[in-house]
Parts: sequence; C-alpha cells; structure tokens
Amino acid sequence: MARIYNFSAGPSMLPESVLLQAQQEMLNWQDSGMSVIEMSHRGKHFMAIAEAMKNDLIELLGIPANYKVLFLQGGASAQFAMIPQNILNGKTKACYVNTGAWSTSAIKEAGKYCEVQIAATSEAEKFTTIPAFDTWNLDKDAAYLHYTSNETIHGVEFSDVPDAGDLPLVCDMSSNILSRPVDVSRYGIIYAGTQKNMGPSGVTVVIVRDDLVGLAPKTVPAVFDYQQQAKADSMLNTPATYNWYLLGLVLQWLKQQGGIAAIEQQNIRKAGKLYQAIDQSTLYSNPVVKEYRSRMNVPFVLADAALDKEFLALADKNGLGSLPGHRSVGGMRASIYNAMPEAGVDALIDFMAEFERTH
Amino acid sequence: MARIYNFSAGPSMLPESVLLQAQQEMLNWQDSGMSVIEMSHRGKHFMAIAEAMKNDLIELLGIPANYKVLFLQGGASAQFAMIPQNILNGKTKACYVNTGAWSTSAIKEAGKYCEVQIAATSEAEKFTTIPAFDTWNLDKDAAYLHYTSNETIHGVEFSDVPDAGDLPLVCDMSSNILSRPVDVSRYGIIYAGTQKNMGPSGVTVVIVRDDLVGLAPKTVPAVFDYQQQAKADSMLNTPATYNWYLLGLVLQWLKQQGGIAAIEQQNIRKAGKLYQAIDQSTLYSNPVVKEYRSRMNVPFVLADAALDKEFLALADKNGLGSLPGHRSVGGMRASIYNAMPEAGVDALIDFMAEFERTH
Repeated sequence: MARIYNFSAGPSMLPESVLLQAQQEMLNWQDSGMSVIEMSHRGKHFMAIAEAMKNDLIELLGIPANYKVLFLQGGASAQFAMIPQNILNGKTKACYVNTGAWSTSAIKEAGKYCEVQIAATSEAEKFTTIPAFDTWNLDKDAAYLHYTSNETIHGVEFSDVPDAGDLPLVCDMSSNILSRPVDVSRYGIIYAGTQKNMGPSGVTVVIVRDDLVGLAPKTVPAVFDYQQQAKADSMLNTPATYNWYLLGLVLQWLKQQGGIAAIEQQNIRKAGKLYQAIDQSTLYSNPVVKEYRSRMNVPFVLADAALDKEFLALADKNGLGSLPGHRSVGGMRASIYNAMPEAGVDALIDFMAEFERTH
Repeated sequence: MARIYNFSAGPSMLPESVLLQAQQEMLNWQDSGMSVIEMSHRGKHFMAIAEAMKNDLIELLGIPANYKVLFLQGGASAQFAMIPQNILNGKTKACYVNTGAWSTSAIKEAGKYCEVQIAATSEAEKFTTIPAFDTWNLDKDAAYLHYTSNETIHGVEFSDVPDAGDLPLVCDMSSNILSRPVDVSRYGIIYAGTQKNMGPSGVTVVIVRDDLVGLAPKTVPAVFDYQQQAKADSMLNTPATYNWYLLGLVLQWLKQQGGIAAIEQQNIRKAGKLYQAIDQSTLYSNPVVKEYRSRMNVPFVLADAALDKEFLALADKNGLGSLPGHRSVGGMRASIYNAMPEAGVDALIDFMAEFERTH
C-alpha cells in the first residue's frame, strides 16, 4: 500500500520531506559517523541539533526573552500534575475552564494538589461551545487560570485569548500549537505534547514566564522542576534525543512553509472546505457552534449511524485512515493538523460526497 | 566519514541491522501506509508493535507472571522520585547503597520523600569497589533497599545480587540490563532507562512485583502511578511510540544473537580483553577492584595526563569516538554495551597499543 492520508488525532502525519530526511540520515548524520539516536546528548553534534531546534521554536512562536523554553518528558498529562506543583507557590486554589475531555483530565489531576474552582464549563452543552468570557467566574486569590485551547475529542477551539485579569494564564496547547499565531506574552505558561503539530510523541514543550520559574517546593521531582531544568537547558537528565531531532526537522519544515502565518492560511482553507462539505450535506453533521469549531479536529456523525462501519471500511480502502471518532463520542473524526496536505482534505471531501451519492 | 565505533556512555551505539530496518521502514511500516512515528497508539498496527516488544522483554529477562512491566517516560531520574512516592506505603525510611554518581543522585532525590539510611558506601574508596555484603547496615523497618547495579562514571558493577533480607530489593539497572542474566524474582522493582543496552533514550522500563503495585497515595501523578499505568498497559497517556518501536527492534536483535546468555559471553570476552590490555600496559591504568570492574563502562587514565588531548584527538581520527571520561573523574572511558561489536574493542586495543608504542 502506498502512503495513506492519516487522519489520526495524534500521533499523526508528518511531512513526507521530514521522514525522507530522517530516513536518509538514519545511519550517519551529516557525516558524523553516527545515527542521531546513538549520539551522546552532551556531544557537539547533538548540542548543535538541540540549539537549532530551540532557536527555531523561539523564532516561529515569537517567544519573548523573559520566557524559558523547556523540553521535558511525560506528555501534557504529566504537566497536569506538575503545573500546580510548580506554581501554586503557597496558594491553595486554581481556576480551570472545562471545555471537553482534556480540560476535564487536567482538572481531575490538579484536584490532587489544590482546590479547583471551575471558572466556566460547557458541559451542559455537551462541550459543543466555549462559555462566553464575560460569564467566567475568576477568583483573584487563585494561583492561575487554566484552559485548553483546542479539544481534540469534541472539536472545539478557542478563537481568541481569554482575559485572565491578574492571574497567570496557563494553556494546554497540545493540539493547536504552531497552527495559528499566538501572543505568547499573554501567557504565564504554554505547554504542549509534540505528537500533533510538532513531531513524534515523547516530548512536552513547556514555555514558562520567568516569574513562574523557581517557585517549586523541594518535593517536586528534579526533572520536573522548571528552575532546575531551565538551568540545565532541559538536560538535567538524558532527554529524548531522537524525538528532539525529529521535532527540529518539523520546525525547519514549518519555516520553509512560510512560518505560522502561512500555515494558518492553509489550516483555515482546509478546515473551511471540510466544514462546508459537512454543512451542505444531508448525511453528515457537526454539532459544534460555528464560531468555536476546531481547525484541527473535525468530528462529524452520519445521519444513519448504521452506515458508520461501511463508511470507515470504504474510507480505509481508499487510503483515508484513522477516521473513527473517539469511543466516548462515536461517529467520525478527521484530524487535519499542519502536516495533513490540502490534497488529503480534498480526497476526504470527494470520498464523502461519493459515499453520500451512493447511500 | 564512515560509521565509527562510538564509545559513548549513553545514548550509545545501536546494532547496524536495527538502524537499517528502521531506515527501510521509515516512510511505510510493513505496508501500513504510515511511518511508525505517525501511528495512533490505539491503532492495530502500533498495538501489535507494543505487544511484541513487551513479550520479547518478558521472554529475554524471564520475568515471572507476578510482575508488571511498564514503559514510562522521564528517565531513571524520574523514578528516583517516583519509587519512594509509589512504595513507601506509610513508612518513613528507605535504605540505599552508595556506589557512585548514580546512587548518589538516587539518594539525593529519595531524601525529599523519606529518611534515607545509607546501608553501605564506597565513597571513602572513591567508588572503586563494592562494600562487602556482610557489612551492610539494613533497617528492617525501611520500606525497601535500593542499589545501582552498574555505575557508568566510576565503572563498578555488582557481580552478584545482594541479600536484602525481608526488604523489597529495588535496583537501577539502567546501564547493565540485558547484558547478563538476572533472577528477576529476587527483586521488588527493577528499573532502567533505555539509552544504553535497550535502544534510544526516552523510555524507562519499570518491572514491579505485584505486591508493590497499588500502594501509591493520590498525590502521585497519574502517569507515574504504577497501578494506573499497569491497568492501562502503559498507555494512560500517549507513550513515546517511536522509541517503543526502536526498543522492540533492539530486543529482536538480541534474540537473534542468542539472548542474554549468549550476549553475556560476548560481554565477558570484550571487557576481559580490554582490561587485560590496560593491565599489561605501563601507560594505561584502571583503579577499580578487579572483582567489581564493570563489563559495560571501562574508565582508564594515562600515566601522563598531558597526553590525554592527543590520545583523544588521534582516537577520533581513527574512528574511535566519545572516549573522554566523565568530567567529574577525567581520563578516558570506553563504554562497550551490547551493541558495541567485538571488532570495535579490538580496534580500540590496537589503537591504544600503537599510541603507547609511539609515546
């Protein structure tokens, strides 16, 4: 089978040029005599790879100088626990907004370490919308305000940055980082797993403002203490070296695409045409309030759920993979991150139209 | 430059056949139409990769059925904190043996969570030996006894399993796991980072006896709670998928070599001839008590340290890389893990003899 269009929610497609370069360099990186996998993380070759990767991320996101950029392990889920542990700083409460499955998980984990105040929730609307900012209930004594900028399962995405007042704003951007411009200076912490828009799984990017570094009590594990990792440039222990390298290749590719502003235009076009196809159909539908529809994850259901199985089997046959919706919501889901070519979205739309015509 | 012999302490050499297979499968794993990097961790392809990898590790190490085998993130250093948090179970003390830099790090981290009793230490001997078992001072009220089976910096290795009495025995095997047979049933927990004998960095193997699973208080992060990860087969969140795949390839290679018993014979031979060359020379020396010399990491110094720089530069020119000793001890270090071919050790010995002849 040739390479397919893979609509997985993550891990997910990488640009083919990235895979080709990784393949070409697998046994001998740039005449070093070694695979990147085999390199000491303290050696000059890997140090150069790491430095370029970090600088490219800073450049792409426009990260101001008063932020530390960390590359940790454990996924965003580890940060669900490590954020309160690192920055509660003696406070006993944090505010969280609940817009779907991932914010729910973050809330559950934070509840182990502090009182969680739900500042807003769209649970009553089955997570098909974002609560209007002016209804949010913030506590000025909370340590921070946390939200999830894109929910992969429910397909809802913030279209603007919420106003956190005086609270540090903390955001899980795992599923839409690098897909649209972001004003980093509005945030206390941005964190993201890399397996959607940034590369392979196994790295967690944590971008943390200087005033939130150095607040961790000594019970925080050293490898998750933002200050200790910042001082060691994320090499307090052996990092996931090959994952850093692949992340770096994806960042280079993104720069070649014209950066985030250019990729955003592609993402707007890709998502726009897929939602339009869904809305114009009588077979397919998406329940999310239009203003908050995700550009990254497009869930949809068939009018007759009895057709789901056939739809998925035929899609697979046509080289359109990983389209089942999350088991908690059913139906279909097309994840169309940065690396999904527009031709993949076009192929999906054509397939959906043909399936509708024949069913 | 052709591929070199890379004596890095980790990340370190992989078998060339593993790299060739990874290269060949990079864009399209076994006709799936996807790179392994791109696969959903919940999809059938990756589930098959994960299951085969785990079963191969169980087979190679002979892990009994009453143990859980976890594949986590964060490195052995994260486990330095997570082991006491998971298994103290209300106790307030743990016993640690200090045989070098890595046990020292484990002790420091454990001290955040409990009182650490140093059961034995070779610090006065500059970590050139292992304290005799009959001198160890154990406390029967401690939660466990921890030791490091091989010290990469000081080059000392346990030749036998210590007697922990009634205490669960916990061992950091990061740098010699899979290099020699081990009776897993003697242990409460065996853990290891993968970047030496098992593959790329980015995975931590934790083998934990059933009675030590389920003891964690709720303040342990979910992704580091042994029970929660055991129930989720280490997929409570997205694992480092490509790293699991590479680990699986290394395990398949090890089986092809004849398993651990066969690789141990190679390791005995490789280390034996290198130590013999050092001992027979007047230029090179190794300070470790012979009985406890590491088969994996062979540190040595030159009689005249002024020659170090030239030695290293010439070695590099001859395709013998990453030979500088750790900055804390200086000199040289040859790490000769499973994947270092015997021809690499022979080449190093030849080079050392020629250097001695000409200096």
